[in-house]
Amino acid sequence: MKYLRVGPAGQERPIAESGGRFYDLSAVTGDITGAFLAAGGVASVEGLSEIDISGQRRGAPIARPGVVLCVGQNYAAHAAESGAEPPQTPIMFYKAPNTIVGPDDDVLIPRGSQRTDWEVELGVVIGRTARYLDSPADAAAHIAGYVLSNDVSERAFQLDQSGGQWSKGKSCETFNPLGPFLVTPDEVPGPLRLRSWVNGAPRQDSSTADMIFGVDYLIWHLSQYTVLEPGDLINTGTPEGVALSGRFPYLAAGDVVEIEIDGLGRQRSIIRGAS
Amino acid sequence: MKYLRVGPAGQERPIAESGGRFYDLSAVTGDITGAFLAAGGVASVEGLSEIDISGQRRGAPIARPGVVLCVGQNYAAHAAESGAEPPQTPIMFYKAPNTIVGPDDDVLIPRGSQRTDWEVELGVVIGRTARYLDSPADAAAHIAGYVLSNDVSERAFQLDQSGGQWSKGKSCETFNPLGPFLVTPDEVPGPLRLRSWVNGAPRQDSSTADMIFGVDYLIWHLSQYTVLEPGDLINTGTPEGVALSGRFPYLAAGDVVEIEIDGLGRQRSIIRGAS
Repeated sequence: MKYLRVGPAGQERPIAESGGRFYDLSAVTGDITGAFLAAGGVASVEGLSEIDISGQRRGAPIARPGVVLCVGQNYAAHAAESGAEPPQTPIMFYKAPNTIVGPDDDVLIPRGSQRTDWEVELGVVIGRTARYLDSPADAAAHIAGYVLSNDVSERAFQLDQSGGQWSKGKSCETFNPLGPFLVTPDEVPGPLRLRSWVNGAPRQDSSTADMIFGVDYLIWHLSQYTVLEPGDLINTGTPEGVALSGRFPYLAAGDVVEIEIDGLGRQRSIIRGAS
Repeated sequence: MKYLRVGPAGQERPIAESGGRFYDLSAVTGDITGAFLAAGGVASVEGLSEIDISGQRRGAPIARPGVVLCVGQNYAAHAAESGAEPPQTPIMFYKAPNTIVGPDDDVLIPRGSQRTDWEVELGVVIGRTARYLDSPADAAAHIAGYVLSNDVSERAFQLDQSGGQWSKGKSCETFNPLGPFLVTPDEVPGPLRLRSWVNGAPRQDSSTADMIFGVDYLIWHLSQYTVLEPGDLINTGTPEGVALSGRFPYLAAGDVVEIEIDGLGRQRSIIRGAS
């Protein structure tokens, strides 16, 4: 199953997609919440009303999560381009959940920013409370689905202006375009290709197979340190090919950032200056 | 005005305290939410029903916030005992909001922990959306009130097991005892004494006057990097006297941690091992 949310920001309607058709979930749930996902979502679209969503804004496919937990430097080549050794254990930090916007919404360069950067990532949405899981093999039962996520970052804020704590460069408004789809695990077979472009020119092109710590390991590991709750979002790290590498310019107003993960859809964000 | 919440965890009833008497807020609001605070809370207890709360559990005085934003090393002597220079700019990181528990609830030492530590802090609750404030002078209008907060920390998780990103040692379950009261700014005059004890022996004893970056500066500064929303909690940093200093043992099951800030009340947490 694929879930999405359409409509004006803050008033999105929950939708299920199946076989290229869209179905209104409003009769079943008010929103794509943790509670809806914990209850198993919907198993089929039988009995749901088909709905025409053409022309409507696509919002993020989940309601605002309790946390957006990010994993840092989880691809060896990205760690290297960031000037770091591959981590021995997952690096965990948070970004503010109110950074989440839709997959076609504008991204705002913060005031005073010189180094705003893109990061295509595989997002994992928790479906069942995960606390002290026994092993990575237990992780799958706690995953509601996967989502395309752009972990937008301001590198000066992240690296130079907070004593080395990264969250200051991760939590600016609009810094987490998400979606368009939340895709249940049964529809996500095997490793996925992740790509990004700026103004049509390729930037990142990698595979989730290159993750240092895979999704199951991450969920198990993180559950030893915090309680993951239904609806929480985990951004699992970005591969090489960001501006921080020095190979590409940072973002400027007017740029267009596109990101895509096979099977999870595509985003297109116009970059503007924060007013 | 003082706000608090009493009752079983997850089913707390909102209460106002005035002149040592308690009043049921249930007729006015379902909870002490950001929306309630943004609307100004209640100006007086006139018309509210008095209520007997004796014998009831005290919960955290606010509903779960959108974020728990923490400021690191904001007292010079604590920075020094942590082996760091005083920061030139506020250090910002997050802890998971589901760490919040009541002021008398147990604190659980995480599995595998060797270095669980206490941190008495002045918590600030946002009352009005703060985005790109013009100056620190604008901060006061965005503050709903102040609250006693224990930013419990696992030092190995924080410092050694996450590539230097602190959140992994800040987000374990029960790691943010909060309350008992949210106190509106009109009832919080001037600098406040902060203290902590372990098994009755003094640990921290300092004043908010010793903060490197004061509350108004912090709110203004943070609003340049993220959008603070009503109901959000900001933990403003801890003074010297924690176990990380090397002067005191870390916490063990059976210990009793007490913390207090003048005018904001007192907490008493029994330390137990996570099962």
